[in-house]
Amino acid sequence: MTKVQVNLGERSYTIHIGMDTLASTGRLIREITQRTRVAVISDERVAALYGKSVMQACRDAGIQGHLFTVPGGEGSKSLSQTENLYTQLIGGGFHRDCLIAALGGGVVGDLAGFAAATYLRGVSFIQIPTTLLAQVDSSVGGKVGINHALGKNLIGSFYQPQFVLIDPSVLQTLDRREMWAGMAEVVKYGLIWNSGFYEFLEEKLESLAGLENWDDITHMLALCCRAKADVVEADEKEGGLRRILNFGHTLGHALESVTGYGWFRHGEAVVYGMRWAAWVSCREKKISVALFRRIDALLKRIPVPSLPDDLDRHRMMERIGVDKKQTSGGLKMVLLDDIGRTAIVSVKDVSSWVNGWFEEVLNG
Amino acid sequence: MTKVQVNLGERSYTIHIGMDTLASTGRLIREITQRTRVAVISDERVAALYGKSVMQACRDAGIQGHLFTVPGGEGSKSLSQTENLYTQLIGGGFHRDCLIAALGGGVVGDLAGFAAATYLRGVSFIQIPTTLLAQVDSSVGGKVGINHALGKNLIGSFYQPQFVLIDPSVLQTLDRREMWAGMAEVVKYGLIWNSGFYEFLEEKLESLAGLENWDDITHMLALCCRAKADVVEADEKEGGLRRILNFGHTLGHALESVTGYGWFRHGEAVVYGMRWAAWVSCREKKISVALFRRIDALLKRIPVPSLPDDLDRHRMMERIGVDKKQTSGGLKMVLLDDIGRTAIVSVKDVSSWVNGWFEEVLNG
Repeated sequence: MTKVQVNLGERSYTIHIGMDTLASTGRLIREITQRTRVAVISDERVAALYGKSVMQACRDAGIQGHLFTVPGGEGSKSLSQTENLYTQLIGGGFHRDCLIAALGGGVVGDLAGFAAATYLRGVSFIQIPTTLLAQVDSSVGGKVGINHALGKNLIGSFYQPQFVLIDPSVLQTLDRREMWAGMAEVVKYGLIWNSGFYEFLEEKLESLAGLENWDDITHMLALCCRAKADVVEADEKEGGLRRILNFGHTLGHALESVTGYGWFRHGEAVVYGMRWAAWVSCREKKISVALFRRIDALLKRIPVPSLPDDLDRHRMMERIGVDKKQTSGGLKMVLLDDIGRTAIVSVKDVSSWVNGWFEEVLNG
Repeated sequence: MTKVQVNLGERSYTIHIGMDTLASTGRLIREITQRTRVAVISDERVAALYGKSVMQACRDAGIQGHLFTVPGGEGSKSLSQTENLYTQLIGGGFHRDCLIAALGGGVVGDLAGFAAATYLRGVSFIQIPTTLLAQVDSSVGGKVGINHALGKNLIGSFYQPQFVLIDPSVLQTLDRREMWAGMAEVVKYGLIWNSGFYEFLEEKLESLAGLENWDDITHMLALCCRAKADVVEADEKEGGLRRILNFGHTLGHALESVTGYGWFRHGEAVVYGMRWAAWVSCREKKISVALFRRIDALLKRIPVPSLPDDLDRHRMMERIGVDKKQTSGGLKMVLLDDIGRTAIVSVKDVSSWVNGWFEEVLNG
């Protein structure tokens, strides 16, 4: 089992990565949290695939488990779904000594984590991410939350799990599109944090997305978790450095929002967001045209849906305006200084950069 | 200005107590938090009384303030009211560098604090409590939250304010009933923490409730805040010692709940709860009959409404069952060992203690 330690003082925890470790869920819960009553929150699809084996692993360790399922998709990251979970937890007699386990992708992790952070003023919580995106991004770092009608992730907390359990073998049941969407965030870590890893990805991108070699996959997962842990350790609550993890997310979130969270997977929108941010980095003279082209070439190897024909660019600008990363001054953007290195730049005229990119890169 | 320091590591803060300090709100926000954009959340009554002067104090310090009001009463501690606040904050363009100020009683503090804890994953927060109950209890210690249809305070977080500002002069506009309801929690600190303070209360209870001497009032407020700070410092997240603050709250919460949060003020229900807990302490041989009578005598000096004739005792037992203080074992109760000293006792047959108390004390 590969272990990645996240050092956050009293909130420190370990990410356990290993093939077929789902069967160890119960034992790890016992050893690490000493809890014996677990509410496993999952979505319908993941519950059908892995619910049974996780519940069995709990039983084997003498843990009383209950499986709660929510519908799949971003729509479940809502206040009403959270309320529904509260009601079920109260009705099921879950007290402060229970544990909430998120079994699923980012939606389930964010929702279950927010429920854990706010149920009875916070109960113990673990993450068992089952999508690549959740394994390398959302399950690590303690960001939990739900959406508001006016924007994504506007409601939430910082709430660290007791541990994270990553079983790479579950990626076999992920559809190709989800796998590729996750690769977007994988590439992000290369771009913002680790140029050696970036080169590894230039070499192996399709092999990794095709799950051709489990050692490579495990290596990739561990490096991504280490990168994220490094950043989160330096800045748990996004006061500074952590913002670099939002590379590509300003435009990405806006794209997701104006397309109603149905057109793109999160990672797919972030591919567009990273391509834009790389282009802005070039236009702001942070990187050369050659480097921009090299980055754009790798990002274009990730298959994504085309932008919808009726994309409302004006509404997209508005959404960027309510993005929570905007402070009362200009729009602070994460740009690239080089591969593996970022710069935070306060960008004034965002709309002209958006329009310019549409003309030059997308339609050019 | 009297200052009470709450030492919680990186979450430490100061309680500022002083007559007419409401006028210093803006200056303190500037000095302590460096924020320049403030969402003041209040209820209609308090906003009408003090909203103007707080907004003026903000303007005087060059702070842009907005006043948001919610209806008075427990009903506002709801998920829908919280959602309403999120929508207003997003609509008003409040970003992560804003500050939320709770101006009001416990309801406003709990609601605004929960909104602050969960808006954009947490924004800065201060408390300006305007009821006695909020000044001595709910504004100190970081408990924020809202109610669920199935019970009080079942949704929430631990979220510490940047500072607390207590202006005793606002108690002049508190109606007598609210003032007395707050005295219940004041007496609680004497009972659970400080026997010298308890004797001070035996001597001056009516004078304090009548606001006859501001030095006595300030002394009382500072001692209560110090007592609460001591307990919270030892146990921020209610893993152990902090439970003693729930003395009288098990039955108190149940009473509030089954009477629909309309019959009793919180403190009034806690008077019944403390009388019951003192009686159970006596029956469990923790305190003598004489001591129980002395305590019951002081508690009976606090005027409270009679129990409603149609009180559903069975539903009350049920409510005690979903009280969040119950772990999966028996019902852990805070009892008294002496005046100023508590014991946590696991009580098995709660219903017989409730029935016994009704027969012997209330109807006896």
